[in-house]
Formats: sequence, C-alpha cells, structure tokens
Amino acid sequence: MPDIIDGNKISEEIHAELAAHLANISGRKPCVALVRVGDDPASISYVAKKSKVAAKIGIESRLNILPESTTQEQLDSLIDNLNADETVDAILVQAPLPKHLNEQATFNRVSAAKDVDGFSFANLGKLCQEDKSAFVACTPAGIIELIKRSGVETRGKRAVVVGRSLIVGKPLALLLMQKGIDATVSVCHSRSENLKQICKEADILIAAVGRPNTITADMVKDGACVIDVGINRIPCAEKKSGYKLVGDVDFESVAPKCSKITPVPGGVGPMTVAMLMANTVKSFFARSQK
Amino acid sequence: MPDIIDGNKISEEIHAELAAHLANISGRKPCVALVRVGDDPASISYVAKKSKVAAKIGIESRLNILPESTTQEQLDSLIDNLNADETVDAILVQAPLPKHLNEQATFNRVSAAKDVDGFSFANLGKLCQEDKSAFVACTPAGIIELIKRSGVETRGKRAVVVGRSLIVGKPLALLLMQKGIDATVSVCHSRSENLKQICKEADILIAAVGRPNTITADMVKDGACVIDVGINRIPCAEKKSGYKLVGDVDFESVAPKCSKITPVPGGVGPMTVAMLMANTVKSFFARSQK
Repeated sequence: MPDIIDGNKISEEIHAELAAHLANISGRKPCVALVRVGDDPASISYVAKKSKVAAKIGIESRLNILPESTTQEQLDSLIDNLNADETVDAILVQAPLPKHLNEQATFNRVSAAKDVDGFSFANLGKLCQEDKSAFVACTPAGIIELIKRSGVETRGKRAVVVGRSLIVGKPLALLLMQKGIDATVSVCHSRSENLKQICKEADILIAAVGRPNTITADMVKDGACVIDVGINRIPCAEKKSGYKLVGDVDFESVAPKCSKITPVPGGVGPMTVAMLMANTVKSFFARSQK
Repeated sequence: MPDIIDGNKISEEIHAELAAHLANISGRKPCVALVRVGDDPASISYVAKKSKVAAKIGIESRLNILPESTTQEQLDSLIDNLNADETVDAILVQAPLPKHLNEQATFNRVSAAKDVDGFSFANLGKLCQEDKSAFVACTPAGIIELIKRSGVETRGKRAVVVGRSLIVGKPLALLLMQKGIDATVSVCHSRSENLKQICKEADILIAAVGRPNTITADMVKDGACVIDVGINRIPCAEKKSGYKLVGDVDFESVAPKCSKITPVPGGVGPMTVAMLMANTVKSFFARSQK
C-alpha cells in the first residue's frame, strides 16, 4: 500500500511555523478580511474554518458578510474600502459568488498587494514571470508544498494535470514548470483525446476536475504519486449529514498502485487554508517593510 | 513531402487585412513607438523591418534610439513619456536590452494598454484569464495564427512545446490550452527526461529552444505538424554575410515525416511582425473607442 500524504499533518506543521514566525512581533497582528456574499452552506463552512485557523496562528480575521442580493457596485465599494484600509493586509472573497456578480472582475478589483487568493491578473502574470513577490493561488501553492514536503522528486519528471481551471489547473501548471521544480508538465481537460494513455505516463498525476471517480486504476502508472484536488459531495445514507466527501480519484482501486496518494478529505483541502495563512503573513511582512 | 507553411504569404495576408481595416479611418493614423537601446545588429535589423511593414500597412512608427550606455532611469523616463503621450497607441522595447538594464522591469513599466509585446505581468495575467482584451505576445500569437490559417486541427490533439520561456513557451502553452483551441498541451525544457519520447507523442510539435538541430527525425511522429520558432545564426562560408539562419529543427531529415512544417526563415519570423501590427491596430481602436 502507498504512503498516504497527510494534508492535515502537513498543514498543522505550516500553521506552527507561521505561529512561530509571528511570536515575536510587536504592534498589530496580521489581518485578513474575509468576504462572503450570501449563505451558501459550503462557503459558510469554509469561511468559518479560515477564521478559526487564523485565530490559532495569531492572525486577526475580519468577517464581512453581505446579503445574496448585494449588487456589483456594493461589493466593489466594500473591496475598495478594504484595499484602502491600512490595517488590512489580505483580502479573500469567498467563491463561488452569486451568479449575478462577476467573479473575475471582483478578483481583479482586489489590490494586487492584498490579493492573497492570487486570482487577480496581476498576480497570475507575476507567477508567469516567476516573480517571487507574487501571491500564488492557495490550492496550487498547497499542492506544491505537499509534493515538496513529501519528498516527491519533480525534476525532469512527468506531471499530468487534469483540469485547466484558472483556480487550479493553469497556475499549478505554471508552478510545476518553474525553474527549481522543473517538471515536464501536461495539461489535460474535457476535450483531451486519449486521456487514459496520457494519465498513465504521469509520475505525478493531479486530478482537478470536480467529478467523482474520474481517475480509475487503469489510468495510473505503477508507482505514481497521485494528488486529488476534487472535493465532491455525494449522497450517503449512513452519514448524519446525508452526504459524504469524495475526490476525483477512485481511491480504493487507485491507491494500491501508487507510491503516494492524498486522501479526500484530509489531503489538499487543509493545505489551501494553510497557504491562505502563509500568504497573509507574507503580505503582512511585505507591507510592514515598506 | 509535407506542406510547407508559408509564413511570408500568411503574414502578407494579415498585412493586407490590417491595411483594409485602416483604409477608411479619418484623423491620425495608429502609431507604434519602437525603442532600441544600443547597436546590436539583429536589433537594428528587426526594428527596421517593423518600421517598414508599419509604413506599408498605414501605421506610423516612431523610432526612439538610445545609446548602449543608457541608464535604467533614462529608459524608464522615456517609457513614462511614451505611456503618457496620447498620440502613441503602442510601445515596443526591442529585446535583448544591454545586460545592465532590467528587461523584466522594463517590460512591466510599459502601460498595459500600450504593451503590444504582451510581456508585462498585466497582459500575461489577462492571457491566463482568457480575457480577450489582453495583448498576447507576438510570437505565440503568430504561431496560433499559422496553425489556424493552415487548417491544423487542435481540438483534443497533443501539442508539445519544447522550451518554457516567458517570451514563447509559457504564453504559447496558455494559448493552446484555451477554450476554443482545446489542445492537450505538454511543455518540455532542458531538464525534461525522455524528451524524444514525449516529442514523438505530439500531433503538433513546437520547437522554441534556440539551438540548431534540437529536433531530429527520430523525435517526430509520422504526420505531425512541426512549427520551428528558432532563429539561429550559424557560420556559412557560401553566404556573403558569412552566416545563415537555421531553426531548432533539422529540417531536411524531419520534413519528410511531417504533414506540415514551417521553414526558417520564412515561417514564424514574419508572423511575429504581423502580430505586432495587429496588436497596434487593436490598441488604436480600443483607445479611440474610449
């Protein structure tokens, strides 16, 4: 059986490192402004989790809750205020936004210097340029940390990313091909022919599709490292909530073939929160050195 | 033998389309400011070529020549003036710059709205976001035009890009994976293991390495489309100049295996100039509609 990459444990290590880094600061704490629009249950849960982890590390979080009926102008106005607020280091607008709001325009409105989500064009462009001052999107950054801290070799190896989203697939591909990581990167998506064959070439296979059981055992090379980014809710009568979380990978059949694999939950998920905290601390120190 | 993709012919078509598009404008013409620092012979030749093509299409070009000894402050000051000049639609800083100047910082200083080279973080980030208002770097944009106008199928096909530069490899990979183009994209580089095997999987193989004879016949699948981005000067006693231009592909051995292939010179090179003109015209109309 493979090594299970324990995202909970690795994220706890990062939290402890960040807390230690903040232990000796005087004056105000780092501050992340969390923006939630509407009452999507998953968003409520994610934002609450982020607040809780922030408090544990020594980061102040300020929760800004707007009603579902919020207009683009109202949301823009809140972001402008947070951009201008000298006591706010970091701004996170929880996705998904209600359908009548423009998500990309909203992400681009966040000041690049506070865009700890890394979704603005400014930070995406700096990531292309391999500019170390960029804020890298939290899920891709978390995947790289998981890979590095699990001792997975990347240099010259074939990484296959399934999914070309702006939130995961594209920034992750840009990270994996950077100097120092040096993977040979392939990006597959819904239009790709021969998906099975391409996945089977991967030393590192990353599934970021959002559909359960997309990656099955016949698509995985013996000894591969498999990273599962999917968080899918499927009905489950045995659970009190009525659902359970599964990834994009058919874990039971795939795991026996892998050298390493991430579980869902407890793999990539907690790393996303950890990297949000790391980006907030990075912003705090960058801004305090100005 | 394969179809030779004629970059000269296709670029002439684009020039004619742009000239027709400009035929009925009244008032001032579109204007591109060309900035050259020092007297690198290749740069002199590229800038002269760009001026000549611009004149033919009906675009004004203003040549700004600075001495090799120019400081970063002096170059920045010129760019700031061009950014502010309402009669300038487009700014191109010819690379390579002398070693004492910071190329990336210079590209980033050009206003995103006039950055027809597409090398600023703002335009790279917008390319990631598939924002149609972005200026896409001219060489990758030219390659996409060559592929489209040659009737090469991209949807679901495997495109392998050899080279991960900011100027070609990365933006080209982002373009090829965009919705509507839909290729499955792999990016290889100097650290890649099994380069030969990966290249051999390509339906579309793009060489952007800058080293002659990097792609040999044993690396190419029968029937592939091969795009050669390299422009390498090698000594040649038979030429009056003492050198000749060759690409990254060993054309003689590779061509018989291909369905389509670009020559060097006369393939990608002229497309880069054509796309600079297309971006200048795009900027002109975008700015005049404000």
